[in-house]
Amino acid sequence: MRFRTTSTITLAALLAGGTFWVAAATSSDQFSPYVDAKGTISRPTAFRDEWVHIGSWFVREDDQASGPGVHDVYAEPSAVKSFKQNGQWPDGATLVKEISSIREGQKATGFAQWAGEPGVWFVMVRDRKNRFPENAAWGEGWGWALFTQDSPEVSLTKNWKGEGFNNCFGCHVPAKDAEWVYIEGYPTIRDSANYGN
Amino acid sequence: MRFRTTSTITLAALLAGGTFWVAAATSSDQFSPYVDAKGTISRPTAFRDEWVHIGSWFVREDDQASGPGVHDVYAEPSAVKSFKQNGQWPDGATLVKEISSIREGQKATGFAQWAGEPGVWFVMVRDRKNRFPENAAWGEGWGWALFTQDSPEVSLTKNWKGEGFNNCFGCHVPAKDAEWVYIEGYPTIRDSANYGN
Repeated sequence: MRFRTTSTITLAALLAGGTFWVAAATSSDQFSPYVDAKGTISRPTAFRDEWVHIGSWFVREDDQASGPGVHDVYAEPSAVKSFKQNGQWPDGATLVKEISSIREGQKATGFAQWAGEPGVWFVMVRDRKNRFPENAAWGEGWGWALFTQDSPEVSLTKNWKGEGFNNCFGCHVPAKDAEWVYIEGYPTIRDSANYGN
Repeated sequence: MRFRTTSTITLAALLAGGTFWVAAATSSDQFSPYVDAKGTISRPTAFRDEWVHIGSWFVREDDQASGPGVHDVYAEPSAVKSFKQNGQWPDGATLVKEISSIREGQKATGFAQWAGEPGVWFVMVRDRKNRFPENAAWGEGWGWALFTQDSPEVSLTKNWKGEGFNNCFGCHVPAKDAEWVYIEGYPTIRDSANYGN
């Protein structure tokens, strides 16, 4: 499930906020503007400018890395506010992980790495009520979606326990006790976590 | 000017937004809420929750690195909006660079590094009118400030061309042509940059 990005895409694709996401007339608006009546998840586009950046992961490029790159994770401001109050993700909370290629070089403070072009986006939507039992992209209290530079509008995730890119489950098992989110990497909120109840 | 952080501070210090910053009655409010009448710069505290995260740098810990750590950079939403329109920082724009210790380990996607405890904050405030000619913390169109875990309320920068921690100039020379900001590392805005005029 290697998702190395290429240098052929441009930031313009992402920065054209609103271009990709079209509000579906059938969306379950009271639950989430990013989920339609069948549980199909759309990719939010305004997360860089309007959401809270909860943390970054830098995953080294080596032969063992299935997903090298700069991983920037964003959450909706209302979800972050709720998490800080209760220590858990509220129903409908949406998280976006944007994965970019790595740029690197010697800088004044040392050898540095930073984000190049974005190429992959993972989206998770909190669902405590098992709203979409017939949609295999939903499970264990979340909806799971994957978008790539080749498919920025349609999630490739058909079954969150599927093979390859669809295997959200495989990567998230280590975070099961934190409600499937790698909360340890998110300085903005991790001290508020409360998964004991 | 090594600014390695220690593990003794806690996130609580930063997350207690508003605790440190007290609006000064003498602040030049029409210019910036973070600058008083003498050009003294205060540390913004709500940047994680309310500002735009414009990019991260991961600076490797090695013998050559003067400032290893995770560098997260934030800008005010209004400044980012203006930058996207004009390609330049508007007067009064404030940038905050938060530097945290590095945590690392093997994760599902590969060997990863992420932010630990924050310990150092650099603040820059755009000033195109040379408002504070008698304050040596201001120069080349910016106000420069540094806060540490030991001095979170009072900037240690007395002269932006000074020695050690005060030597903002030394580290930023390579970014002079981008108005002293390392714009290449900020995916959210770098394609909008316009320094030709």
